Amino acid sequence: MPNSTHSVGVVSAQRAQFDTPLSFRSGAVLPCYELVYETYGALNSDKSNAILVCHALSGHHHVAGYYADDTSNVGWWDTMIGPGKPIDTNKFFVIGLNNLGGCHGSTGPSSTNPETGKPYGASFPVVTVEDWVESQARLADLLGIKQFAAVMGGSLGGMQALQWSLSYPERVRHVLAIATAPRLTAQNIAFNDVARNAILTDPDFHGGNFYEHGVVPTRGLRLARMLGHITYLSDDAMADKFGRELLSGKLSYGYGIEFEIESYLRYQGDKFAAYFDANTYLLMTKALDYFDPAREYNDDLDKAFAVARANFLVLSFTTDWRFSPERSRAIVHALLHNRLNVSYGEITSTHGHDSFLMQHTHYHEVMRAYLNNVSREFAA
Amino acid sequence: MPNSTHSVGVVSAQRAQFDTPLSFRSGAVLPCYELVYETYGALNSDKSNAILVCHALSGHHHVAGYYADDTSNVGWWDTMIGPGKPIDTNKFFVIGLNNLGGCHGSTGPSSTNPETGKPYGASFPVVTVEDWVESQARLADLLGIKQFAAVMGGSLGGMQALQWSLSYPERVRHVLAIATAPRLTAQNIAFNDVARNAILTDPDFHGGNFYEHGVVPTRGLRLARMLGHITYLSDDAMADKFGRELLSGKLSYGYGIEFEIESYLRYQGDKFAAYFDANTYLLMTKALDYFDPAREYNDDLDKAFAVARANFLVLSFTTDWRFSPERSRAIVHALLHNRLNVSYGEITSTHGHDSFLMQHTHYHEVMRAYLNNVSREFAA
Repeated sequence: MPNSTHSVGVVSAQRAQFDTPLSFRSGAVLPCYELVYETYGALNSDKSNAILVCHALSGHHHVAGYYADDTSNVGWWDTMIGPGKPIDTNKFFVIGLNNLGGCHGSTGPSSTNPETGKPYGASFPVVTVEDWVESQARLADLLGIKQFAAVMGGSLGGMQALQWSLSYPERVRHVLAIATAPRLTAQNIAFNDVARNAILTDPDFHGGNFYEHGVVPTRGLRLARMLGHITYLSDDAMADKFGRELLSGKLSYGYGIEFEIESYLRYQGDKFAAYFDANTYLLMTKALDYFDPAREYNDDLDKAFAVARANFLVLSFTTDWRFSPERSRAIVHALLHNRLNVSYGEITSTHGHDSFLMQHTHYHEVMRAYLNNVSREFAA
Repeated sequence: MPNSTHSVGVVSAQRAQFDTPLSFRSGAVLPCYELVYETYGALNSDKSNAILVCHALSGHHHVAGYYADDTSNVGWWDTMIGPGKPIDTNKFFVIGLNNLGGCHGSTGPSSTNPETGKPYGASFPVVTVEDWVESQARLADLLGIKQFAAVMGGSLGGMQALQWSLSYPERVRHVLAIATAPRLTAQNIAFNDVARNAILTDPDFHGGNFYEHGVVPTRGLRLARMLGHITYLSDDAMADKFGRELLSGKLSYGYGIEFEIESYLRYQGDKFAAYFDANTYLLMTKALDYFDPAREYNDDLDKAFAVARANFLVLSFTTDWRFSPERSRAIVHALLHNRLNVSYGEITSTHGHDSFLMQHTHYHEVMRAYLNNVSREFAA
């Protein structure tokens, strides 16, 4: 249980049901859907202190606090959010949700399709970052939030935050885009493609309809996660943490787990495969691949951001080779070319892409300072 | 067919049978084995002009020239080796072999074990770089070569070249270690581990004895190769070659091949899975993981190279993130600390790790200049 003086404490998930059909970028239509979300802090009287936290590939709505019946289940960004923390719940009303297509309670491929009585499986539409923002805007409507004080996220979450400034320029005052990119590189897509292929070619995947076969494509999910982990960590962090240490202290001359890094990766892979939905993994990686606001503007990112009105904090981490600082600077340049207010920080960190989830003093101080200024814009 | 004035022309593979048992580092013993090899150029009267070319993970003995009955099957380093080329066959006698454990003709997991009449499969020993050098030394004995003018290779081949200077300091005058490392990093091992797991968990692998089941672990091999390819290319080279181009020009909102990079990777994966042996892949990656001459010297690479007597050319490529220039410089420092003759070149190239296989002017000029000096040490 976290130190209760700095934790939002016991939280519980809420559900929102939407019965207005949602049209996706793909052309698909979802007649109805549910979103699961959590909130921390109190919404002020004019509903001007709300922050939306968007999650990354494997994230969810449980962002801070813990559950009464499971106190060790602490939210994934609990170090950042709470009373007196950088995202101060004494000042802000914070919302975390599980994205549409997810596997933590919101409607997704593993949910029952009311039209068939069976899981959606392969029939669940490919969801884009734009679609998510649309679904998040409906949640904001439901909560009576006309404009967010801030929308933020790291990695894929950062892409959603950026998209908010494009889809709903008037509904977000500040965008905090952390460890993200204006679009994936060919190498980024390539890693995603290998992960997807591991799942797609797992004989237990059954074309996405594995639920009715009573199996799970564990092998594929495991490989996808192992590979993901390599790209989340920096080369140096891996060297520091694992080096070439051998589990048993000597070479085994076999193909079992031998080096400590192998033990770590397989453990992470097994853990992930035990709870994450394979179709959600496919869908999340595709959303990453597709995000590319410049596409409609002949690859001109400046033009893509011409509609934006928000103020921006863009943060990158020096050892993040998945979404390198160079990618963040591309966002910053496009924003500056549109004469928008931009703060940019390049945080020295050894932890690679994962840095955005870590409790890192400089990073947290920058977040705290920025959000402290944001909090001055509205009455307590 | 290559330009015949610069090609070694028609070549044919030769076989050498060894009936003296070979003891491996693992403790395993192979009672007898065959090596398949090719030679280019002529051995001079005192047998002092021989060059051994060691291959990398997926390489083999067909290094230069082409086959009479298959003229389009050109050796993998044909741009480097031939009359008038950097490795000039008018001066040198060049040997390429398929390593023990390989799948191109030398005894390996897919060969028939004479004791059982069945393929070795999972029973084939894990082979180390030291074991390979031992088997290569026996081939040199057979050919009457007491000392090589040079032993060379790129990547895993470079590790073998380095090991020659440690196992047989008096039998090699020059070591050319290209795009290699004194040992793998945790990240390198991690990538290998994901590739191995893709193979090991493929239901068609059958614990390595898939031959008798009449199947091949195609899915695993495919994933392993796709992943490998990402690490062979630089981020920039991928961006230049594929970018975010879509095969059909528009998004498909499905999980089929969509981006050009996906098409490339899957093609490479399918091609590889159609001919490469899964057990050989496991064995080659394990040899990479195990190579670590400093291990026996308390991680002191200087001490490991204290026995070396050769002269060295160490080359790295600026965009090689698999075996970065930093790794080559570590080799250079250890050699210099032992007062050995070392030339080091850091070649500016956009092609990542694959650069060592490419026809790159500066790289080829450096190789040519170095080997021209080597050729002055012996009578024509």
